[in-house]
Amino acid sequence: MASIQDLRRYAPTVVEPADFDRFWRDTLDAARGRPVLVDVRPHRTDLRLVDTWDVTFAGFAGDPVRAWYTRPAGVDAVLPAVVEYAGYGRGRGLPHERLTWPAAGYAHLLMDNRGQSGLHGAGDTPDPHGAPGGPWPATWGILAPHDYHYRRLITDAVRAVDAVRALPGVDPARVAALGNSQGGGLALAVAGLCDDLAALLSTAPFLCDVQRGIELTDAAPYGEIARYLAVHRQVEEAVRHTLSYVDGVTFARRATAPAHFGIGLRDNVCPPSTGFAAYNQYGAANGREGTPPRELHTYPFNGHEGGEAWQVERQLRWLDPLLRPATDDATR
Amino acid sequence: MASIQDLRRYAPTVVEPADFDRFWRDTLDAARGRPVLVDVRPHRTDLRLVDTWDVTFAGFAGDPVRAWYTRPAGVDAVLPAVVEYAGYGRGRGLPHERLTWPAAGYAHLLMDNRGQSGLHGAGDTPDPHGAPGGPWPATWGILAPHDYHYRRLITDAVRAVDAVRALPGVDPARVAALGNSQGGGLALAVAGLCDDLAALLSTAPFLCDVQRGIELTDAAPYGEIARYLAVHRQVEEAVRHTLSYVDGVTFARRATAPAHFGIGLRDNVCPPSTGFAAYNQYGAANGREGTPPRELHTYPFNGHEGGEAWQVERQLRWLDPLLRPATDDATR
Amino acid sequence: MASIQDLRRYAPTVVEPADFDRFWRDTLDAARGRPVLVDVRPHRTDLRLVDTWDVTFAGFAGDPVRAWYTRPAGVDAVLPAVVEYAGYGRGRGLPHERLTWPAAGYAHLLMDNRGQSGLHGAGDTPDPHGAPGGPWPATWGILAPHDYHYRRLITDAVRAVDAVRALPGVDPARVAALGNSQGGGLALAVAGLCDDLAALLSTAPFLCDVQRGIELTDAAPYGEIARYLAVHRQVEEAVRHTLSYVDGVTFARRATAPAHFGIGLRDNVCPPSTGFAAYNQYGAANGREGTPPRELHTYPFNGHEGGEAWQVERQLRWLDPLLRPATDDATR
Amino acid sequence: MASIQDLRRYAPTVVEPADFDRFWRDTLDAARGRPVLVDVRPHRTDLRLVDTWDVTFAGFAGDPVRAWYTRPAGVDAVLPAVVEYAGYGRGRGLPHERLTWPAAGYAHLLMDNRGQSGLHGAGDTPDPHGAPGGPWPATWGILAPHDYHYRRLITDAVRAVDAVRALPGVDPARVAALGNSQGGGLALAVAGLCDDLAALLSTAPFLCDVQRGIELTDAAPYGEIARYLAVHRQVEEAVRHTLSYVDGVTFARRATAPAHFGIGLRDNVCPPSTGFAAYNQYGAANGREGTPPRELHTYPFNGHEGGEAWQVERQLRWLDPLLRPATDDATR
Amino acid sequence: MASIQDLRRYAPTVVEPADFDRFWRDTLDAARGRPVLVDVRPHRTDLRLVDTWDVTFAGFAGDPVRAWYTRPAGVDAVLPAVVEYAGYGRGRGLPHERLTWPAAGYAHLLMDNRGQSGLHGAGDTPDPHGAPGGPWPATWGILAPHDYHYRRLITDAVRAVDAVRALPGVDPARVAALGNSQGGGLALAVAGLCDDLAALLSTAPFLCDVQRGIELTDAAPYGEIARYLAVHRQVEEAVRHTLSYVDGVTFARRATAPAHFGIGLRDNVCPPSTGFAAYNQYGAANGREGTPPRELHTYPFNGHEGGEAWQVERQLRWLDPLLRPATDDATR
Amino acid sequence: MASIQDLRRYAPTVVEPADFDRFWRDTLDAARGRPVLVDVRPHRTDLRLVDTWDVTFAGFAGDPVRAWYTRPAGVDAVLPAVVEYAGYGRGRGLPHERLTWPAAGYAHLLMDNRGQSGLHGAGDTPDPHGAPGGPWPATWGILAPHDYHYRRLITDAVRAVDAVRALPGVDPARVAALGNSQGGGLALAVAGLCDDLAALLSTAPFLCDVQRGIELTDAAPYGEIARYLAVHRQVEEAVRHTLSYVDGVTFARRATAPAHFGIGLRDNVCPPSTGFAAYNQYGAANGREGTPPRELHTYPFNGHEGGEAWQVERQLRWLDPLLRPATDDATR
Repeated sequence: MASIQDLRRYAPTVVEPADFDRFWRDTLDAARGRPVLVDVRPHRTDLRLVDTWDVTFAGFAGDPVRAWYTRPAGVDAVLPAVVEYAGYGRGRGLPHERLTWPAAGYAHLLMDNRGQSGLHGAGDTPDPHGAPGGPWPATWGILAPHDYHYRRLITDAVRAVDAVRALPGVDPARVAALGNSQGGGLALAVAGLCDDLAALLSTAPFLCDVQRGIELTDAAPYGEIARYLAVHRQVEEAVRHTLSYVDGVTFARRATAPAHFGIGLRDNVCPPSTGFAAYNQYGAANGREGTPPRELHTYPFNGHEGGEAWQVERQLRWLDPLLRPATDDATR
Repeated sequence: MASIQDLRRYAPTVVEPADFDRFWRDTLDAARGRPVLVDVRPHRTDLRLVDTWDVTFAGFAGDPVRAWYTRPAGVDAVLPAVVEYAGYGRGRGLPHERLTWPAAGYAHLLMDNRGQSGLHGAGDTPDPHGAPGGPWPATWGILAPHDYHYRRLITDAVRAVDAVRALPGVDPARVAALGNSQGGGLALAVAGLCDDLAALLSTAPFLCDVQRGIELTDAAPYGEIARYLAVHRQVEEAVRHTLSYVDGVTFARRATAPAHFGIGLRDNVCPPSTGFAAYNQYGAANGREGTPPRELHTYPFNGHEGGEAWQVERQLRWLDPLLRPATDDATR
Repeated sequence: MASIQDLRRYAPTVVEPADFDRFWRDTLDAARGRPVLVDVRPHRTDLRLVDTWDVTFAGFAGDPVRAWYTRPAGVDAVLPAVVEYAGYGRGRGLPHERLTWPAAGYAHLLMDNRGQSGLHGAGDTPDPHGAPGGPWPATWGILAPHDYHYRRLITDAVRAVDAVRALPGVDPARVAALGNSQGGGLALAVAGLCDDLAALLSTAPFLCDVQRGIELTDAAPYGEIARYLAVHRQVEEAVRHTLSYVDGVTFARRATAPAHFGIGLRDNVCPPSTGFAAYNQYGAANGREGTPPRELHTYPFNGHEGGEAWQVERQLRWLDPLLRPATDDATR
Repeated sequence: MASIQDLRRYAPTVVEPADFDRFWRDTLDAARGRPVLVDVRPHRTDLRLVDTWDVTFAGFAGDPVRAWYTRPAGVDAVLPAVVEYAGYGRGRGLPHERLTWPAAGYAHLLMDNRGQSGLHGAGDTPDPHGAPGGPWPATWGILAPHDYHYRRLITDAVRAVDAVRALPGVDPARVAALGNSQGGGLALAVAGLCDDLAALLSTAPFLCDVQRGIELTDAAPYGEIARYLAVHRQVEEAVRHTLSYVDGVTFARRATAPAHFGIGLRDNVCPPSTGFAAYNQYGAANGREGTPPRELHTYPFNGHEGGEAWQVERQLRWLDPLLRPATDDATR
Repeated sequence: MASIQDLRRYAPTVVEPADFDRFWRDTLDAARGRPVLVDVRPHRTDLRLVDTWDVTFAGFAGDPVRAWYTRPAGVDAVLPAVVEYAGYGRGRGLPHERLTWPAAGYAHLLMDNRGQSGLHGAGDTPDPHGAPGGPWPATWGILAPHDYHYRRLITDAVRAVDAVRALPGVDPARVAALGNSQGGGLALAVAGLCDDLAALLSTAPFLCDVQRGIELTDAAPYGEIARYLAVHRQVEEAVRHTLSYVDGVTFARRATAPAHFGIGLRDNVCPPSTGFAAYNQYGAANGREGTPPRELHTYPFNGHEGGEAWQVERQLRWLDPLLRPATDDATR
Repeated sequence: MASIQDLRRYAPTVVEPADFDRFWRDTLDAARGRPVLVDVRPHRTDLRLVDTWDVTFAGFAGDPVRAWYTRPAGVDAVLPAVVEYAGYGRGRGLPHERLTWPAAGYAHLLMDNRGQSGLHGAGDTPDPHGAPGGPWPATWGILAPHDYHYRRLITDAVRAVDAVRALPGVDPARVAALGNSQGGGLALAVAGLCDDLAALLSTAPFLCDVQRGIELTDAAPYGEIARYLAVHRQVEEAVRHTLSYVDGVTFARRATAPAHFGIGLRDNVCPPSTGFAAYNQYGAANGREGTPPRELHTYPFNGHEGGEAWQVERQLRWLDPLLRPATDDATR
C-alpha cells in the first residue's frame, strides 16, 4: 500500500480522447430530445413521515428508467433535492431501504441501475441494448464507446437530475448528486457533465483512473473487465479506448460543484489511489478560477465499505448549510 | 434440507429446566429493583423529520445500557413504540442507521448489545462481568446459567421494554418487540417474559432449539459454542444445561402477543428448523385458550438475510393496524 | 448422493406448459423465415489437414450468429456432420481449439454462444436483445418465456443444424448434435426439436430438470438463477414458468435420434440426478414405438468434467458406425 | 517481503508514553500487595517421570490464575525453572501437553491465559473484568490503558515468575521466561519488567511494534484489533495510546537477561519485521553497559510456526549451560 | 451425519481377498528373513530424564527404516514398550517431539514413515520402490497389491514391533501398538498381524472400510486416491482390489489384543463410520472365544483431531494397569 | 508486480555448478548407452486424418518411457517433427487430446512424464527410483543432484528427441521441442542439451530461475519445494545445490535453436520474472556469435494459462516457415 502522503499527491495524467466533450454533448443532446418525465404515481409505503412516488423518466435513447421519489410527508414547500445512485449489481430496491435523505428533509430521487439488478439488490429497469462485449454489465458493449453500458448509465444519471428538477416541489438550483462505489462514479460523472450542480458527494468511487483500476484488482467490477480481457486477448486497445470516455478523473477535472469525498484506505474493490486520482484533480480543468470547495475523509482500517454511517454523518452535516433542507417547521 | 412440509410440522420437545420460570422471575425481579431510566439526553442527528435521544437505562445488575430513542420530530402525542434488538456482534451503531420504524411513525428504542460491538457493528455498552467460559460473547460464562452472557442480555432486553414504557410520549400498552437473528431471539425471549406485549416480530431467530443449532452449523454464533465444546470436551453437559435456560422455543411457548415471523429456507447461520421449532409451538404453553395470532413468511432462495426489505414491508403492513402509529396529521 | 440405483430409476414428472410445442413451433417458424447462411468465408489456420470457414448464419430473429466450419482438407466428398455447442460462458473460440471431430473425418460446425463469451472462452456473437431479468446470461429476460435468453440460444442451436445442412459437402441425413454442460443441454433441445437428427451426444447436460437444478446447487449457471431469485423474491413463479419452456427433460421426451450420454456422479454444477432425469425419459413421448437406442456412461469419481477424453473415445467409437465419416481413402 | 538485510537493520522508534515505567510499577506494586501462592495441590497424570501440581496464584488484582507446575519426579534438589506462556486463544491445557522442559530437567510452570481458552486450547482461568472495548480478548478494554486485557495478562505473567520463585525446590536466580507468539510477547514483557531474569526465549513474538502490526495483517490477534478499529472508526487514537503501554519493543529495550529469539520469515500472523524490531533493540535502554547476549534464528520458508522442534532443539542447547538443569544423577 | 446409534451398529461386510492371509504371511516371512536391527546409536537430546537412540531396522525388503527409541534415563530394568506410528505425510520428526510415553515410564519406539515426510512433518526414510500408480504416497503402486506403498509401510510397522522386542531392556510380552489417523490404521494392521500384542490404541484410524472412505471425502489421503481415480478412470477395479489387502476392518477382525479407540464424530478426514466399522468388528474373526476387551471414546464436537490430550489422558490410564510401566522407584 | 520494462531487463546471475556440463554429459552418455526405441505399435483412435503409434523408448537408466506418436494418416513422406512435453502432474493422456500439431502436418511425439500422472492428467510411466526427499514428484530425491527426479525427467526429454529421430518418416534435422509450464521447462532443457535442435517453443516455463521461484510462490510445483523446506529446515543448502543443476536459465544460456516464448504477466505459478530470466539470457553462453532468433509474447491480463489458443496460433505461424510441415498435397 502506498503511504497516505503518496496518495495525497497522486495525480496521474489520465488519457482524454480528443472528442470527449463532444461525445458527451452529443449523447446528452440526443437523450434530452424528449420530455424527461414519463410517469409519476404515488406509491404506498406505510411510512407516515414520508411520501413516495414511483417515477419513470426517459433515460438514454428515451428508455424508461425507474426511480423512487421520496420527500417529507405533506410538505408542499420547495425543497432541495438529493439524487442518489446505487452501487454495481443493485437497483433502486424498495423505497423504504434508503430513508436517510428524506428523513433529513430533502427531496430524494433514487435511480434504478438499468440491467444490473440481481447481483446484490433488486431493480425494475432493463437495459434493452445489445452489442459485442462481455457477459457482465461492466463489459456490455465495451468494444466501442458508443455501445458501452456506462455511456447509457451515465446518461441516465444526468437525466435523473433533469427529472428531479422537473418534479413539483424541487428547487432546481439546489440539487446534489450522491453515491457510493459505482454510485459515487456516476455522481462524479454527473458533476462533470452538469455545471450547475449544487453539491457532489462521492464515496469509494468506481470508474476513476480506470486504466489503473483494471490492473490492480480482481474484484468486480474492475475484475470483470480484466477477466474479459484475459479471455479476449486481442481487444485490449479497443477496451482501453472505450474506457477513456467514462473515466471519473476526466469528469472530475471538469466539475464545479462543492465536493465531499470518502475513501477506505484498504479498499480492494476500488483501490484508494484511483479515488485520490479523482479527488486530487477535482475541478482542475473546469475553466474557472480556483478549485471548488472539496474535502476528503479517509478510513485507514476500512475497505470498500469505507466510513459507512460515520461518513453519512459527515455528509449530513456538510450538506446541510449548503442546501438548507426543510426544517421541522418548514414541513408544515 | 428437510422439505417445507417437514418444517411446518417440526415441533421438538425442548428440555425445560424445572426452575426455568423461577430462574427468570428471580432474575428480572432483581434487575427491576432500581429505576429503569438512568439518563436521557437529546442527540443531534441533522435529521429534520425525527428527534433522537441518547438513553441510558439500568439493565441486568443495574448495569448502564445504552440505547437510541427516536421518534417523529416535534410530535407530543402518545405513540406506540417498537423496541428493536440488534444482531450478534453489533451494537446500537449511529442513530441514523435504522430509520424505518421512526419514519413509519413509531417511537423507536434501539438497544445496545452489551459487550458485543466490534465484530459487525459499533456500540457503547460493555459487559462488566467475568466468569468461566469461552472467549466470544456467546460463550461468556456458559458454564453456569447464572453466569451466562445471555442471562444478562435477555434481562437487558426486558428492561428495554420497561425503559420505553417509562419514556414520555409512549403508550405502554402498545409496545412491540422486534429483531433479526440474535435480535429475533431476544425479541422472542421478551415475548415469553412480558405477557402484556402488543406484538412480536422475529426474523431468522437465533437462540431457538439451541441444542440442535449447535449440532447443525459451524457458523457463528452457534459455531462458537460448538468450537468451545470442541476444545473443552468435558463440559458438554454443563453447557447444555446452561443453554436450556435461554432457549427461544421455551420462551415462545409462554408468549401471548400476536407474532410475525420470517425465515430464509437456506439459512445456515440459524437453521430454518430451529426457527420453525419456535414458530410451531408459539403460545402453546401460555396458559390461555387458543393460539395467539401468528404468521410466518418463508424465503426459499434466501439464507440468513431472509426477506430483507420484503419482510420489512410485510412487517410494516402487519403492525400498522395492530399499533396504529402516528398519522401525518397526528404528528402536529 | 443418491445411490446409482436411485439415479437409474429417477424419472420425475417435469411440468410441461400446455403450449410448449406451439411455443417452439412458432419460434422456429419465425426464425426460419429467412435464408440461413449469411456469410461463409475461408479462414487461414496453418493447419494442413483441415480447411476452415468462418460462417455467419441467421439465428433467432435473424440475428447473425458466428460459427467455425471445419472439415478434412481438400475433401470434396459429401460428409456426415457434427454440430457442436459450447459450454456456458464460452463462445466458438479459435478454430484450432476443437479438432477432434474434423480429425475423425467429420464436417464440423462449432456454434458461437450469443452474448456469453468472456467468462471462460472467447466468442464473436452478441445477444442484441434486452428485457427485464438479471445481469448474467442465464437470467437475461427470465421473467417471460418469449424474452428468455435460452429461447434465443436454443433457436440458434436449431438453426445451426439448418446451416450445416445448407453448407456444401454435408449429407443432411447424417447430422449429429453434440455438447457438454450447456452444450449438452442445447444438443438435447435440438434433439427434441429436430426429428430427423442422426445422433445426439450429450454429456453433463445443463438445463435438465431445471426446477430441481436451481434448488440443488449454488454453482453457475443454476446458482445464478437461484441468486437472482434470492434478490427478486417476488418473481419465483414467473421464473419457474419461463424455465418450463426450456427444460431438457421435456425436449428429451420428444427426441427420436440415437443417444449417447455421459455423467460424472460427483457433478455439483449439473447435479447427476438432473441428467438422469433426461436420460431415463429419453424418447418417452416422441410418438413412436419403442425407445430410441441410447446409452449412458457414468464416472463415479468425477464431477462436472465427467469422462473427458475417455468419454470422447467412447463417443468416437459409438458414432463412427452410425455416421460413417470420411475414411482416409475417401479424403482423396 | 523486505530483504533479510533490511530486517537485520530494522529498528523503528516506537512511541513510549511518558508514564510507561510508572504505569507498570504501579500496576505491579498493586498486584504484589498480596501473597502470590493461593493453592498448590498434587495432580495425578500417570506420568512416572514427572510430578505435577495444580497451582493457583494471585495475578492482576489478586485474581486467581491457574498454572501447571511440573518437575522431575521425586527430585528434591533445587532446580532452575522455566516459566512458559501459551499462545493466543489457548490456556494451560492438560499437564501432559507440554513435557519438553520438565523432561529436560527443569522445574516448569505453565501459566493459564485468563479468559482466552476456547479458540485453540483449553484453560481454567476467567478474566473477571469488563470495560469498553471489543468482543475478542485482544480488544477487551482496549479504550484505556488501565482497562486493557493485556495489562492484566502481563501482570499475571510477571506474577507467574513470582509464583515459581515461591514454590519449593526452585532456585529464584535461575528462572527463564519462554513462549511463542503471544507467549513470546508475554515473555518479552516479563524480561522488560523483571531485571533479574536468568534468560528469555521468545519465538514469533506477538505484541511487538504493535502500531505496525495492526496495519500489516488481517490475521488474529492483530487483525482483531484492526477489525475493531474498522467498526469503531472514532477510537483509533485511544487504541493506539493504549497499545503503546504494552509494546514488546519498549519492554525489550529495558531487558537485561540473555535472550534467544526465533522468527519465521514468512510469518503473516506476527510479521517478521515486528519481531526484528524487538530483537534489534533488545536491551538498548536497560541502563547498563553493552547489550545482553542475544541470538536470533530465522526460518526462511516458515510462517508463524517458525522453527518448531528445530527451534526447541536450539533452545534446549542454549539454555542448558545458562541454567544447568538437573542431571540424571541429580534427580536421585 | 448418521446418528450415534447407527454408528454403534455399523458393521459392513468388507470384501476379504481369498488369499489375504497368505499374502501377508508371505510378505512378512520375506521381510523377516534378515536380522531386524541394523543400527542402534545414542542420540543427544539435552533431555535429562530420558535416553534416546537413533535406530535403524530392516523393514520391507530389508530397506533401512529409521526410528527413535526413547526410554527413562538410566533405567536398566526391563520395561514395557509402546510402538508409535505417525500420521500421513509425517515422519519420526525430532526425538523431543513426542515425550508422552517415555515420560509415562515406557520404552518408546517411534517409527519413521517411508517416503512420506515433507507434507506435515519431517523424516529420514525414503521409499526406494517405484511402480505404476499415482504421484502421492497413498497412490504409489496402487495398481497391484504387491506394489502398493501400504504393503511396504504395514510391513515396516510389523517389523517395528520385531525391532523393539530385539532391543535391550524391553519385555517382548508387553508391547503396545499406538497411533492416530494413518498411525491408527498401521497400529490396527499390526494388531491383526501380530497375535501376541499386549494392547492396541487407535484413534481416528485411517485405512478402515477403505472402499467407503474413498467415496465419502475429498480430504487427503482418501481424497488423493479418489483424485487418482478421477484421472485414471479405467483402473477403479484394480485399485479396489489392491485396497482390499490393506483394509483395517479385515485386520481388526483378526486382532486379539485389548483395544482402546477414539473417534471424533465430525471427522471428515477419516469418516467416523469407517472407524466404527473396525471397532464394531474388532476381534470378530480372530479364532478365539469371545471378543477382546475393547473400548471406544467419542468426541461429538471434534473432527479428525478427536480427543487430543483428553484421549491421551484416557489412554495413559487405560494402558497403565495392562502394561505396568516403570515406577519412579523402578527407574533407579 | 514489476513493470514490463523491469522484466524486459531482468537478467539475474544464476549460479552454475562448476561441473554442470560434465554432470549432464555423463548423465546423457549413460542413458544413450542402449537403443532408444523399445517398442512401437499402432494404436487405434477412430481419427481418420491421423495415424497413432504407442511408443516406448529407453529413458534415464534405460527405464521404459511411453509416448504417443501421431502423424498425418497415410503420409509416407519424411516430415518435420514436434516433440511435446506435458505439464506437471500430467502424463501423455489419450492420443486424441492433443491434435494441433499433427493437424498442422507435423510428426508429433508426446512424451509421458514419469511418475507424475494422477494430479491433473493421466499417464502410463512410473518413476522406479527412490531416494531421500519429499513426497511429491518435484521433491523426489531432491537432496542430491544425482537422485533428483528432474535429472531423470530431463534425460527422458532429451531421449524423446533421440527417439523421434529414430522413428521412420522423420527428418532429424527438423525437430522442434515444445511445452507449457513444466513442459516449457523441459523443452528449454532440451534446447540447452541438444545443439542441433531446429526450434524451441516454451510458454510459461517452469524450472527457470528456480532459486527465486521457490521464494515467490506457494503454488505447486515451486510451492511444494518450499513446503518441503519448511518442514525440513536443515536441508536448504542441499536443495539449492540440487536445483542449480536443473535451472532453465542455465540451459537457456547454452541454447542455439530459434526460440518462441510466451508469458502471462499475472502468472503466479511460474512468476513472469523467472521466465524473462531465461528469455533475456537465451543463447548468451552458447559459444556462438550473436543471439539465436527469439521472440517473446506477453499477455498482461493472464496468469499461468498465458495466451492459450492465441499463443498456439502464433506458434503455428512462427514454426511453419522454419520447419515446413506437410502440405495438403504432400500428404498424398
